[in-house]
Amino acid sequence: MAKRLGGQTLAITDAVRVMASASVTGKREGEGPLKARFDLVSQDSYFGQDTWEKAEIFMLNRCFSLCLEKACGTVPDCILGGDLLNQCVSSSFAVKDSGIPYLGLYGACSTSAEALCMAALLIDGGGMNNVCTLTGSHFCTAERQYRFPLEYGSQRPPTSQWTVTGAGSVLLGRAGKGPLITHVTPGRIVDAEIMDANNMGAAMAPAAYDTISAHFRDTGRDLNYYDAVFTGDLGAVGHDILQELFRRDGIDMGVRYMDCGVLIYDLNTQDVHSGGSGCGCSASVLCGHILPAMEKGIWNKVLFAATGALMSPVTCQQGCSIPGICHAVTFENEV
Amino acid sequence: MAKRLGGQTLAITDAVRVMASASVTGKREGEGPLKARFDLVSQDSYFGQDTWEKAEIFMLNRCFSLCLEKACGTVPDCILGGDLLNQCVSSSFAVKDSGIPYLGLYGACSTSAEALCMAALLIDGGGMNNVCTLTGSHFCTAERQYRFPLEYGSQRPPTSQWTVTGAGSVLLGRAGKGPLITHVTPGRIVDAEIMDANNMGAAMAPAAYDTISAHFRDTGRDLNYYDAVFTGDLGAVGHDILQELFRRDGIDMGVRYMDCGVLIYDLNTQDVHSGGSGCGCSASVLCGHILPAMEKGIWNKVLFAATGALMSPVTCQQGCSIPGICHAVTFENEV
Repeated sequence: MAKRLGGQTLAITDAVRVMASASVTGKREGEGPLKARFDLVSQDSYFGQDTWEKAEIFMLNRCFSLCLEKACGTVPDCILGGDLLNQCVSSSFAVKDSGIPYLGLYGACSTSAEALCMAALLIDGGGMNNVCTLTGSHFCTAERQYRFPLEYGSQRPPTSQWTVTGAGSVLLGRAGKGPLITHVTPGRIVDAEIMDANNMGAAMAPAAYDTISAHFRDTGRDLNYYDAVFTGDLGAVGHDILQELFRRDGIDMGVRYMDCGVLIYDLNTQDVHSGGSGCGCSASVLCGHILPAMEKGIWNKVLFAATGALMSPVTCQQGCSIPGICHAVTFENEV
Repeated sequence: MAKRLGGQTLAITDAVRVMASASVTGKREGEGPLKARFDLVSQDSYFGQDTWEKAEIFMLNRCFSLCLEKACGTVPDCILGGDLLNQCVSSSFAVKDSGIPYLGLYGACSTSAEALCMAALLIDGGGMNNVCTLTGSHFCTAERQYRFPLEYGSQRPPTSQWTVTGAGSVLLGRAGKGPLITHVTPGRIVDAEIMDANNMGAAMAPAAYDTISAHFRDTGRDLNYYDAVFTGDLGAVGHDILQELFRRDGIDMGVRYMDCGVLIYDLNTQDVHSGGSGCGCSASVLCGHILPAMEKGIWNKVLFAATGALMSPVTCQQGCSIPGICHAVTFENEV
């Protein structure tokens, strides 16, 4: 039975833990600083398929299969999936032949953490033993859907981010010795009235600030409780804004704060401007880098706060602002 | 604590009930057979806004506000919302200023039932006291997104359905005397390899058959247990296919089986071809018609099975089939 702490955070009272996780990425991510960490790296953007959308479906399907293989074929009671394609077709098509109940989510780039929040609550609620999350994104499908066909060769401003071609899948359950999910903090929507669709970091950082602050307030913890705090895809611009927002509260986030969008690429050499984005960013870094490091004991207490920008090309064209959202999950090793 | 029954169904063991519900629709729905049932009917497709997308946001916002007003201003612990617009912007924009944690869902037209499944499980899981669901769709935004600009005046085949301009919002919690949610059956994806994007009923009916059959198998109930069984938006074509699928099992669904997409319009006079669709279809009929009838005691045991077609214009253009999904919820009065 989950226990409510304060306004937004729920404590997971059952021992809900990571039973397995898997990550799959594209070529550029496989050339970045985390290249050795991913389970599978494609040598191109097609993954052997004839369209980018089918490549994205294939990538998610492989990631899901790899995760279940690592769990020795455990069949989850339910899949929670999401992606950035219109009508969330890549996650649903990826698992359509699995025969497992499927609940689709949409939290933009925050979907990885949204899925983990829900999965932990569903298991803790008693009705499910194992729930698998699956999220991902693809640079080429996202570009043509949200911006312009890649063939145009559009210029990108320095604040823009590079949608990660990548996927992450986590199987949560009660067995094994993996990291526990001890708390979840579902986020509120925060509208900082950012209008620039090429500056997602600025749109999402206030939501990250809101959710992480709520998490600290609800749990009575502070930054020092954690060995590491990750945001999902604020990129270099949003990473700086979030630190500035906490600095106004007298809090120096220091080196224990990192952003998945900054970690996944070499920002000096990989021509990705402000860093990585997309729901595959936080998902692949979580599954390829963060959870394996926790299993090695490098970090024992981690706050994972994935961020999303709630916009569409149509809302931007109609002059709407870009609200942000952030959902946070606490992973802790039993030590 | 939810209790697993069989392969897919979960019994809700806490008394999770409908505390309030509200429905808002457009003009055509307000001229149909259920016209007197909706809380608010717009006199045009704009709801006083300058674009259809903003009209959809306004409609969802009004529906959400009306639902909370009926619950005397109860503030939910969380909102579960979804819609058909790309990036689910109408539900997120509708509640962006509420200050309430928001979890976005995407289950195509099945989102209303998906949200109810999750909301009931979140409350039963102990961490939340009240959860509000919000789903809706708009004919004009859906047409231009999925098909053609309305100005083209495209011809529609007889199997096509009319996206409902409508929204429904349900506040679930533990107080009051409203109908209980006693069981939820999250659905599996079923791909019957339908390729015709103008025949959603055929694409979704096999998923409805799969989920309703699983519900009966898991619970040991049959059709006769229920006073009424509703599918979400199979329309006339899918309604006939579902009956035929059950007939092969020797089951006559009879008059207790109804489809929200058939109920919401007069199929003979309203020029909607096979009937209503869209996640506003099942949501507005549930909140305007089904739940109020349960409160009057007309039905005491209802199975509500909303159906969704998991496709996008891109998947159709790339030659993919149209898988379906269906999630089911049992509402029961204490008698």
